[in-house]
Amino acid sequence: MNSERHVRHFEEELEQLKARLLEMGGLAEDRVRSALRALVERDLGLVEKVLMGDTAINQLHIEVDDRCFKLLALHQPMAVDLRAIVSAVKINTDLERVGDLAVNIAEAVRRYLQHPPVKELIDIPRMAELAQDMLRDALDAFVRRDTTLAQTVLDRDDELDTLKTQVFRELLDHMLRDPGTIEPSLDLILISRHLERIGDHATNIAEDVIFMVSARDVRHHQEQEAEG
Amino acid sequence: MNSERHVRHFEEELEQLKARLLEMGGLAEDRVRSALRALVERDLGLVEKVLMGDTAINQLHIEVDDRCFKLLALHQPMAVDLRAIVSAVKINTDLERVGDLAVNIAEAVRRYLQHPPVKELIDIPRMAELAQDMLRDALDAFVRRDTTLAQTVLDRDDELDTLKTQVFRELLDHMLRDPGTIEPSLDLILISRHLERIGDHATNIAEDVIFMVSARDVRHHQEQEAEG
Repeated sequence: MNSERHVRHFEEELEQLKARLLEMGGLAEDRVRSALRALVERDLGLVEKVLMGDTAINQLHIEVDDRCFKLLALHQPMAVDLRAIVSAVKINTDLERVGDLAVNIAEAVRRYLQHPPVKELIDIPRMAELAQDMLRDALDAFVRRDTTLAQTVLDRDDELDTLKTQVFRELLDHMLRDPGTIEPSLDLILISRHLERIGDHATNIAEDVIFMVSARDVRHHQEQEAEG
Repeated sequence: MNSERHVRHFEEELEQLKARLLEMGGLAEDRVRSALRALVERDLGLVEKVLMGDTAINQLHIEVDDRCFKLLALHQPMAVDLRAIVSAVKINTDLERVGDLAVNIAEAVRRYLQHPPVKELIDIPRMAELAQDMLRDALDAFVRRDTTLAQTVLDRDDELDTLKTQVFRELLDHMLRDPGTIEPSLDLILISRHLERIGDHATNIAEDVIFMVSARDVRHHQEQEAEG
């Protein structure tokens, strides 16, 4: 294989890798969306569908790791290409966890649906929208090497955190006023925590994108500035 | 640099990398242990110490990532060495998260200590012991490339899960019987979830070790067998 063909082959493989990560992201997002729709529409059948297994995501997880290893071993990439592949390894882990979180949400929804509704659900669906948007944008930022888009993902994390705190306070209030709502309220709190973690994974991906493109590590900067 | 010196240099760098990961693991474990001691001994000063910042872990996090990139770029390792370095990237992420979880635990402890004790704490300290043992053994398994030890980590995850469920049921009972304990009980439930996640990170590391040594992916095997 001559050098030019070698480079072209690498580029093609990298595109395939990105396509697989987007596919995984889409699947993970679908599962989170289904779990949330099951919650809002009180649809136990849909819950079971989410719980039935995330085989497709898990297979992609293994495949992506495998592709990353082959790219590292066969092409020995440098600089931004090397960072792209190591980022892909990390993003792969993040997406697999998002798939797991969809299962955790579905488990909480299944328990929640055994009780009458605690309250009208407003903030939790908003959290879900926000977390899913962050995840989608983080992946788009990876594929397009777009640090501006990645930065907007980081900026939205505080909003998710505020919603989580709001949900917690409101449900705590419900529990204190009406102890009969303790069990289902607990499950809503857990669901909001799972959604927050999906936002965390989107944030991880966005940080990887910024590192990949600019070789700048944004992960612990703020705190270092604050402490320095 | 001739080839033999190149190899020796790589081996030395790899040892340094392992030493840094062990150091990070030790720091993360210390922080979790402090947060738990603060809970059991109701020591607010110790809580604040944990909350004061995980600068040391975060700096190691950046350093380890940097070392991994340099090793990949300069030495272009193959086979088990390549897998070791990619595993180090992943383990680095896991350990940084454990440091974050120590902060999350400390935050819950701070809230918890604003109330009288809900109950004698037995299962939560047990969960903490178990999670920390798993983490320590997973890292030892990585350094010694010991898949047998890694397997024992995987085997202990169910035990942690059982304890978590037990803690949840017991605290739910407390809340239902005495709604005055709702707030502190909630924090104990959150602490037990954080400890469970530390066990998850130990499990991730153990799976990486098995993959590194044997190039065998144990992550989604059981479910595939179950489904197939």
